[in-house]
Amino acid sequence: MGALTLAAFMLGIGAGRQAKAQAAPDKPIVRIAELEIDPAQIEDYKAYLREEIAASVAQEPGVLSLSAVAIAGKPASIRLLEVYASDAAYQAHLKTPHFLKYKQGTADMVQSLRLIETEPVMLCAKGGGSYC
Amino acid sequence: MGALTLAAFMLGIGAGRQAKAQAAPDKPIVRIAELEIDPAQIEDYKAYLREEIAASVAQEPGVLSLSAVAIAGKPASIRLLEVYASDAAYQAHLKTPHFLKYKQGTADMVQSLRLIETEPVMLCAKGGGSYC
Repeated sequence: MGALTLAAFMLGIGAGRQAKAQAAPDKPIVRIAELEIDPAQIEDYKAYLREEIAASVAQEPGVLSLSAVAIAGKPASIRLLEVYASDAAYQAHLKTPHFLKYKQGTADMVQSLRLIETEPVMLCAKGGGSYC
Repeated sequence: MGALTLAAFMLGIGAGRQAKAQAAPDKPIVRIAELEIDPAQIEDYKAYLREEIAASVAQEPGVLSLSAVAIAGKPASIRLLEVYASDAAYQAHLKTPHFLKYKQGTADMVQSLRLIETEPVMLCAKGGGSYC
């Protein structure tokens, strides 16, 4: 294998890895977050969360949907379903003032955070949905 | 306590229970479902699920959104976020031909099903969302 062929082969591997790490162009990035919040601060936490969700979906073209629920009977157990148009959209989201305000403002409220990466199967909603 | 007063009291309790079991009029019913599917049948399962989701959101006014994902690296671990306009909408959904086809068609594919009732905090999506 010549040097050029080898370089092309290695570039090919690199490109393959990148394609695997990121979602396909027509697939959103979808993640579940499982959070346990300090019960004494849950109302303050939800106020931060609501403000962050509203701003993200309204202002960021790549934030397709953010859904937040509390487990029935466990009001401090929060579950999120986050849908971003692409990895770039998600990375941009992490740098927005509204996300940073939420992250910093709730840092001492969040007792645990578990992020679960997922593959979308189908995401349908009235009006279309992001992967329907 | 007279018979009429007692009857009114009991009716009051009944109404209170019903109000508690159902969501408030302005709140959708939101549920998480955690399913483990027979790995050998996961593609068949997803075909049934996609058909059911598409039909439900397209045909039922009270099915606001149905989101289905697979855990990354565990393609037979399916997670659903289901949003219905009301308990009546959910009960009606259970009787539709497309839901019954899905339920019966996938009965021997589903190894476990855990339903988690939730309280919505905020459900926002491009175009509005169902509790935003």
